Amino acid sequence: MTDLNKGNYMYRPEITVVDCTIRDGGLMNKSNFSMELVRAVYKAICASGIQVVELGYRNSKKLFDPKEYGPWRFCDEAVLRDVVGEKKGDTKIAVMMDSHKADYNDLLPREKSVVDMVRVATYVKDIDKAIKIEQEARARGYQTTINIMAISHTIEWELDEALQQIDKETEVQACYIVDSFGALYSEDIDYYVQKYRKYLHNKEIGIHCHNSMQLAFANTIEGIIKNANWLDATLCGMGRASGNCATELLLGFLKNPKFDLRPVLDVVGAHIYPLREHISWGGEIIPFQIAGMLNMRPDEALKLMELPKNDPARNNYRAFYERSVAPGED
Amino acid sequence: MTDLNKGNYMYRPEITVVDCTIRDGGLMNKSNFSMELVRAVYKAICASGIQVVELGYRNSKKLFDPKEYGPWRFCDEAVLRDVVGEKKGDTKIAVMMDSHKADYNDLLPREKSVVDMVRVATYVKDIDKAIKIEQEARARGYQTTINIMAISHTIEWELDEALQQIDKETEVQACYIVDSFGALYSEDIDYYVQKYRKYLHNKEIGIHCHNSMQLAFANTIEGIIKNANWLDATLCGMGRASGNCATELLLGFLKNPKFDLRPVLDVVGAHIYPLREHISWGGEIIPFQIAGMLNMRPDEALKLMELPKNDPARNNYRAFYERSVAPGED
Repeated sequence: MTDLNKGNYMYRPEITVVDCTIRDGGLMNKSNFSMELVRAVYKAICASGIQVVELGYRNSKKLFDPKEYGPWRFCDEAVLRDVVGEKKGDTKIAVMMDSHKADYNDLLPREKSVVDMVRVATYVKDIDKAIKIEQEARARGYQTTINIMAISHTIEWELDEALQQIDKETEVQACYIVDSFGALYSEDIDYYVQKYRKYLHNKEIGIHCHNSMQLAFANTIEGIIKNANWLDATLCGMGRASGNCATELLLGFLKNPKFDLRPVLDVVGAHIYPLREHISWGGEIIPFQIAGMLNMRPDEALKLMELPKNDPARNNYRAFYERSVAPGED
Repeated sequence: MTDLNKGNYMYRPEITVVDCTIRDGGLMNKSNFSMELVRAVYKAICASGIQVVELGYRNSKKLFDPKEYGPWRFCDEAVLRDVVGEKKGDTKIAVMMDSHKADYNDLLPREKSVVDMVRVATYVKDIDKAIKIEQEARARGYQTTINIMAISHTIEWELDEALQQIDKETEVQACYIVDSFGALYSEDIDYYVQKYRKYLHNKEIGIHCHNSMQLAFANTIEGIIKNANWLDATLCGMGRASGNCATELLLGFLKNPKFDLRPVLDVVGAHIYPLREHISWGGEIIPFQIAGMLNMRPDEALKLMELPKNDPARNNYRAFYERSVAPGED
């Protein structure tokens, strides 16, 4: 019998929810959300009791052209102040910096910034860059996380070494398992959480799932059961390709009485769900499912979904599967 | 560390997959599929190596008007023979009979029928009717299952007693946990599988999930891990309201080398996914999510989804939530 005293079902105060709709969702529209929408998301997340809202990337304008990408790829301080308005809510504001696409010189001292937290996203091979950004952000007064992307494509000893470095050289609030390709099953979540627990001392474990196989919410719960306490989610699961764990489902599951689902339902109905008319994300889309089950980057599936709806190639799932299983002579 | 020797990941020969697209999907279109589509599904399922295909209900024409419902609500023998054609495949053909809406006199002796298996769906309160149909079907030579619906709305001692009756009075191949309202989390699956295991001897445990919280596939895997061996799935997850565990995801997970995903991808692309243009099912639909997290029948959510797309009530998720949480003075 499941031990219900383990606290899986009850309110666990250590749990921190991070809504990253504008950041991860921004990968589907080049971070081109309207100010009105981002303000509505910010207000709703504050009202819901969620602890952290990530309002975009702070990536380098040398690497992303501001003519091509919207303001939430850069999160200039003036733009964020415009979101927040006169009175900042209790919810902390995070921005994400890609270890290979961001410059820590773009960070003001925290007391001059509206940002509270810098989340550094990195591949294992860029871990030294990530640690440098973490250290610089921390020196400026920010809370930090490091989010290890593409976990299902790592070479194990390199991952182990990266985790040991993070443990020794940083003071992150949390270190994340990022299932970028939506390729993990529950037993894989167990495996990675245990690995992280082995190497990381006095640091929380975070989990960021993609929904390629409709497992993002389930894997997030599995993380909770195994004692991961930092949980990423997005409204309607909006995010790259298959998207993420849905914030509304996660709040429906968590028992912390401070969470209120209602403001989340409001912003979902008024602002996020309608975006599905023009942007295709979600775990019900077959090419994303195929990419997930084959542990592939979703790029080719995304290209397929950009074809016109009446293009027969778009619905030829067998052909997509065949060229994905055996794409060449490798 | 997860014990990978437990066989969760490897091919387990006891596993039986039942594709019930035409039966459960038929709840979304009054069982009005074209003969062409059903033939294509039958051929694809046979080619995929899936062991059982459920082609609809055999419910009573006294209780369902054949002018209102399509042929797959009744599964007349002549209609099924038309599906199968000259040569029957290795996949067994099942029909479902609702214990409270079917008449066992509609069953021919098996040797005169194209049907191999009768699955009896029942609420706990109708268990005696279900057992009678099971016995009559078995006497005519059919394999049988009993599928206990609405498991999350049962009174526990009545469920316990029903399971003991099924154990003593039937010879079902499998007895199913049916999460009709998509309300179960993984720990609930553990709980029910252990309960079934306690009462059922020499009978397999089946699992039929709904996807209200995007947990249908995850809960099916949880069932596998806990040793449920009969697994229901539908193409694209097509089924009532939020739908079911997707056949294509389940085949992507299972390791039995006899399964071939390709024919499934063909029929999904050509016939099933396009139905989404006109029929709304799936776990990304917020009212179905709300119904699942509140352990409600999906009826009210289904009504909401029938409103015109531009009706503001359709997207007013907060209002739907409020009246669902506290629908009256009960």
